[in-house]
Amino acid sequence: MTSIINVNLPQQSYEIAIAPGSLEQLGQQMANLNLGKKVLVVSNPTIFKHYGERAINSLTSAGFKVVSYCLPAGERYKTLNSIQKLYDIALENRLERSSTMVALGGGVIGDMTGFAAATWLRGINVVQVPTTLLAMVDSAIGGKTGVNHPHGKNLIGAFHQPRKVLIDPEVLKTLPMREFRAGMAEVIKYGIIWDAELFAQLEASKNLNQLRYVKPEVIDAILTRSCQAKANVVSKDEKEGGLRAILNYGHTIGHAVESLTGYRLVNHGEAVAIGMVAAGQIAVALGLWQQEDTERQNALIQKAGLPTRLPEGIDIEEIIAALQLDKKVKAGKVRFILPTQIGVVKITDDVPSETIRQVLQGM
Amino acid sequence: MTSIINVNLPQQSYEIAIAPGSLEQLGQQMANLNLGKKVLVVSNPTIFKHYGERAINSLTSAGFKVVSYCLPAGERYKTLNSIQKLYDIALENRLERSSTMVALGGGVIGDMTGFAAATWLRGINVVQVPTTLLAMVDSAIGGKTGVNHPHGKNLIGAFHQPRKVLIDPEVLKTLPMREFRAGMAEVIKYGIIWDAELFAQLEASKNLNQLRYVKPEVIDAILTRSCQAKANVVSKDEKEGGLRAILNYGHTIGHAVESLTGYRLVNHGEAVAIGMVAAGQIAVALGLWQQEDTERQNALIQKAGLPTRLPEGIDIEEIIAALQLDKKVKAGKVRFILPTQIGVVKITDDVPSETIRQVLQGM
Repeated sequence: MTSIINVNLPQQSYEIAIAPGSLEQLGQQMANLNLGKKVLVVSNPTIFKHYGERAINSLTSAGFKVVSYCLPAGERYKTLNSIQKLYDIALENRLERSSTMVALGGGVIGDMTGFAAATWLRGINVVQVPTTLLAMVDSAIGGKTGVNHPHGKNLIGAFHQPRKVLIDPEVLKTLPMREFRAGMAEVIKYGIIWDAELFAQLEASKNLNQLRYVKPEVIDAILTRSCQAKANVVSKDEKEGGLRAILNYGHTIGHAVESLTGYRLVNHGEAVAIGMVAAGQIAVALGLWQQEDTERQNALIQKAGLPTRLPEGIDIEEIIAALQLDKKVKAGKVRFILPTQIGVVKITDDVPSETIRQVLQGM
Repeated sequence: MTSIINVNLPQQSYEIAIAPGSLEQLGQQMANLNLGKKVLVVSNPTIFKHYGERAINSLTSAGFKVVSYCLPAGERYKTLNSIQKLYDIALENRLERSSTMVALGGGVIGDMTGFAAATWLRGINVVQVPTTLLAMVDSAIGGKTGVNHPHGKNLIGAFHQPRKVLIDPEVLKTLPMREFRAGMAEVIKYGIIWDAELFAQLEASKNLNQLRYVKPEVIDAILTRSCQAKANVVSKDEKEGGLRAILNYGHTIGHAVESLTGYRLVNHGEAVAIGMVAAGQIAVALGLWQQEDTERQNALIQKAGLPTRLPEGIDIEEIIAALQLDKKVKAGKVRFILPTQIGVVKITDDVPSETIRQVLQGM
């Protein structure tokens, strides 16, 4: 299986290349992009131990001059302080405007490397080499970069499209099970918001909660159909003027849950799963969606080993207050993405707080 | 005199409005842009004392909900720490994607406010209200935003175009003389790189070094012709792929001089003046420019009360080393903008270090 998906943008289009073993071709793939010779590979210690050498060897063989730097793993290091470290490394190694940062890691590494690249010398190249399912199908595509503010996730950031996204499905083998499931939350999201066929394929497959039991053709669908969905949406609305907001299905309440649990107890995918369950029930409460469809969604979420209930002890009023911090709040109104069918959603900022409250109380 | 100059860009065009007394119309002008209601005015204590109330009253009368924040004045506060303060204020006041930051001040305030706006929620609106000549004719236009790294100026930043630039020439009355002269360096630059007629007009006027002696029609030409030059260049090359580099005439060596004198002894305009003298002499040494024209340039720089010699005690080898840190270095080669006639320059990365050294030794 080798798939190429194009992200078509007015200013700079790029390819998502999905192929087993492609990590070894990183250097060659980048050589085709006509970039400067200097490359900074950014990773975290765990990922770097597994894949750093392979990536660097490939880059070096293709004639790049490579330096690498590991940031500590974890959402709590997704801060401006980490970005300042990358600036220092960029300066020490005299990165130029034609130089490239390569993000070798999951969503946190991708977001931070992208943001450092977006803001060093007012923007240098970045190539995304995602190593988690979540990063492959979501965060590595579409140019959203950034870090957390102590009081809110991804509040600091920029749009900065990668020059290429290179996905090697083989690296999923070392992905912890919980991380795989977190990525599945975004995959299920694409089924609900965009691709009913993907949804049906997931429904028809067994053991979705453990990578090694998932059939190759399902993995193929998971990666290519998800990336295609994301690429389609981003191509139509690069900077979230309208359509792109649908990618935030499950994220409105999800972000609040993540934030209130300190980004630790509940990971991003789990929070999105909870958020999708809540959004589905809000859609039902507002008469937009069939109860039967929301149950199909929730069954799939459960089958993927993801939570469908709020974590113990979380304060519902705090969730409602935290929604006001969402980046998509407009004139104080919280924006929700709500399904109307499997594969179709609508955007609305007209959800009564009372409906949100009732749905959360039932979870 | 009221002039409107358009900056035409593929994604978002905007107007530069030049009119005496226009500070009082800020609110109305912004109301026409269909922005969200929340506005954060960013300034420094001195500027805010003079113009803060007028700006805020105008905004409030137009229906905006306004908060303001002053950053300490001076290039040494142009740091990520100051940006973090702005993020905190943005969070406390729940700025939304439709909200606007207004930069009321000189280049430092404009660059920082622009960068904070570029990176808060991945980009909110910014309106530039420049209060120094330098900011009016240069830094407020064109979307370059950023802060300094401890080891280099403007190394951290982003392109983020303003929604509007509002220039009220009356605020120049409170501008310290040295600051006025600093702005004149950029004005002279436009004469050399783009607008021979502006150059001739400046040559024909007396007492260019003191604002109150400059004739109104010359002030008019200074503002409108300079803004027009900048707008033309930026419209043709928003992100410095090629042509825009000519705006860096005098800045290659200028930046090095500024940096080596700690951004204090020599201000930006003075550094650019020194850099133009150096670039002119390099152009002559390489046989590109007439000695006579470089003398006309240097005479005009002197008439504007700007330096034409290196500051005492500066180490020429350190200047040459610092050039390697310039953002425009490509494959280790320093890029120079060199005049070939008054009003015409060329871009070259082919200047021997020895030529640079000899020219600097003569200064």
